[in-house]
Amino acid sequence: MPNFDSVYSANARNMKKSVIRELLKLTVQPEIISFAGGLPAPETFPVADLKAAADVVFDKHATKALQYGTTEGDNDLKAELIKFEGRQGVTIAPDNLLIVSASQQALDMVAKVFLDPGDYVIAGRPTYVGAIQAIQSYSAKVLGIPFTPEQDGFDMDALDREYQKAIHAGSKVKYIYVIPDFQNPAGFCWSLAKRKALLEFSYKHDLIIVEDSPYREIRFIGEHVPSIYQLDQQGKNVGNIVNLKTFSKILTPGVRVGWIMGHKDLIGKLVIAKQAMDLCTNVFAQKWLAEYMATGKLDGVIKATCANYREKRNVMVDALEEHMPKRWEIKWTKPEGGLFLWISLPKFMNTDELIYKAVEQEKVAFVVGSAFYFDNPERNAMRINFSYSNPDQIREGVKRLARVIESELKAYEAGHRAQTAPEGV
Amino acid sequence: MPNFDSVYSANARNMKKSVIRELLKLTVQPEIISFAGGLPAPETFPVADLKAAADVVFDKHATKALQYGTTEGDNDLKAELIKFEGRQGVTIAPDNLLIVSASQQALDMVAKVFLDPGDYVIAGRPTYVGAIQAIQSYSAKVLGIPFTPEQDGFDMDALDREYQKAIHAGSKVKYIYVIPDFQNPAGFCWSLAKRKALLEFSYKHDLIIVEDSPYREIRFIGEHVPSIYQLDQQGKNVGNIVNLKTFSKILTPGVRVGWIMGHKDLIGKLVIAKQAMDLCTNVFAQKWLAEYMATGKLDGVIKATCANYREKRNVMVDALEEHMPKRWEIKWTKPEGGLFLWISLPKFMNTDELIYKAVEQEKVAFVVGSAFYFDNPERNAMRINFSYSNPDQIREGVKRLARVIESELKAYEAGHRAQTAPEGV
Repeated sequence: MPNFDSVYSANARNMKKSVIRELLKLTVQPEIISFAGGLPAPETFPVADLKAAADVVFDKHATKALQYGTTEGDNDLKAELIKFEGRQGVTIAPDNLLIVSASQQALDMVAKVFLDPGDYVIAGRPTYVGAIQAIQSYSAKVLGIPFTPEQDGFDMDALDREYQKAIHAGSKVKYIYVIPDFQNPAGFCWSLAKRKALLEFSYKHDLIIVEDSPYREIRFIGEHVPSIYQLDQQGKNVGNIVNLKTFSKILTPGVRVGWIMGHKDLIGKLVIAKQAMDLCTNVFAQKWLAEYMATGKLDGVIKATCANYREKRNVMVDALEEHMPKRWEIKWTKPEGGLFLWISLPKFMNTDELIYKAVEQEKVAFVVGSAFYFDNPERNAMRINFSYSNPDQIREGVKRLARVIESELKAYEAGHRAQTAPEGV
Repeated sequence: MPNFDSVYSANARNMKKSVIRELLKLTVQPEIISFAGGLPAPETFPVADLKAAADVVFDKHATKALQYGTTEGDNDLKAELIKFEGRQGVTIAPDNLLIVSASQQALDMVAKVFLDPGDYVIAGRPTYVGAIQAIQSYSAKVLGIPFTPEQDGFDMDALDREYQKAIHAGSKVKYIYVIPDFQNPAGFCWSLAKRKALLEFSYKHDLIIVEDSPYREIRFIGEHVPSIYQLDQQGKNVGNIVNLKTFSKILTPGVRVGWIMGHKDLIGKLVIAKQAMDLCTNVFAQKWLAEYMATGKLDGVIKATCANYREKRNVMVDALEEHMPKRWEIKWTKPEGGLFLWISLPKFMNTDELIYKAVEQEKVAFVVGSAFYFDNPERNAMRINFSYSNPDQIREGVKRLARVIESELKAYEAGHRAQTAPEGV
């Protein structure tokens, strides 16, 4: 066997396996209720309408759809996306738009064009694990910023402090990575005030903001808040925001198509990067999505998906209220959108250990909170997903989860009493 | 506007636009006969059978095909590929196989896991421009090796010499990149002896070979030569060969699906890299290709494609014989497979300039030879494609090309006579 280790790049040595994707392999047994993945509900996929749209592609555009396409993306799909964004109040031209092989490619691409080894990206504590992986894969680092206790965005004092500390230490901070709408993993949604404050911070320090919005359309409670991309566009229009969007959560992840919106100069650079990465995104999928969007049915699917997830989120929140131990400090977020909520346990609990008991003894899975930190992870939290399971599974899964936690609490309390009780009593 | 230039990574500054993809934009006018692209013939796409296979996916596997998939790739597609490779004498297990978003992603991924800035990759002079771009996009370099006059592979003395020079200069050589079957751009096919010699060289110096085989199945004249991957497998079985394959030239490039074969340890590392790059390849496309392959019709499509390209290649070679100027040294390859041939012109000609005259005056396009060199390009060559145009277009296009070259020769001869004639005569 060749000694591959001796020839891997520094980047390759910095690459870490996704805890989530490894966990997902453990949880394929049918008896396990998995809250681990981030999978959309399959019942939301409009199979018949997607088939009809694919038929149109075969009948009308087959030779184009089966051929190579431009790196920039299919013009018909771009036209549909421009209308789709327009209905949300975002104005873009074709050269502000790049079609990508879904958001993870966008994260990789942005990291590749901005990050040198040792550079920093500002991101939340916690934040999306795939973004951390993309950053690490270019030997760059994350400057983690905690959220406020109100969960309405970064603690801006901490942001200022950490940024100044990094700059004074000679580090280069290349961009700010945020998921303002129903953040993965915790479901936090940034307030308008906090979005504006971050935008001002980015102007002041001449920083790019990478705004990742996979869940933006999946708001099932409350009113939409303008995206940071929109706030810049409707205000000073500096053009320093890059907005990442995807079909993965609003229609289907299987086709691997997303889009990047940004300043045309940056889009031009990303196009060059993409040429060397995969030449172009799946042409058939692009034509297919364009045909599907032209039917006008996507908005209805998004509405139905929101209704589906609202119900499931409510079932999960109610079940947590009902079954979770009422002593110690056990808390969970109550998100107004997205796919996840976040449970915080007492400091003495460690979900990196709890996961094995949960899967083996109670047949329920979650993602360990530590996965969502670049460094110094909090180990007393977990991410649970409510989009994929059905309401009965959610109720049963939460019961199981509550039993695991209850048993951990009891063990701790027994040990604690034993330790604090005088010897021999 | 933000000053993006000040924040781009060193990698981004090393990225170069693809001359080919830029050229393709110039050549979309219908009156231009373009030999520039590397597009397969659309008439070879089995549209009805692909539609039938897609229908099966919609009817039987819709929710799986529209959902996220594993990074490693769809098991059904892997099973079909294992059979497909088996029929060619290549034995692989599922963990020797990674499904990728076509070969360009494979090239990017291999570069990412092996190359640190300043590292070298050994590759041909000329070689595939997309491979050069991928290498440059990690700030690495190409150690260019010329081919023998017989065009049967690298000049092995030059390889030895250049390798020793690089090693003594303290450079790290990470892998050898070759396209042994009907190489892009020139159509060269490596002899069995040269493949064995390169394999021995790789064993001796403990080097990985990245064997890119997009055209391997597209042999329309002569007998198949074992791949280097096969030679290792059937011989010492060291496992240092990575073989890149794709559906792009044997079925359809529009679906963007390819596969990597290699040692399971390396495949494992590439899986981790791919997690951060795009999570997984288009799941719908994978299920669709698996269904299509299960019909057993792919081999027939490959046979028909070979017949189609054989005819076009013959038309092109015949037209060149008929129309090209018979004076000076004008040569072209006569490939036994693939999509391209390579024209070498006299040293005093520069195709970087000729291309504009060709497109503007004669409405015929090619790719400038200089695009296929990392450094010190030869400027007196061009790549022309025979797969995309029809026979009439090929005949007419070659006539136009011959006229441009004839006019250049005349201008040179006139200037040459003027210069060498005594003044005032």
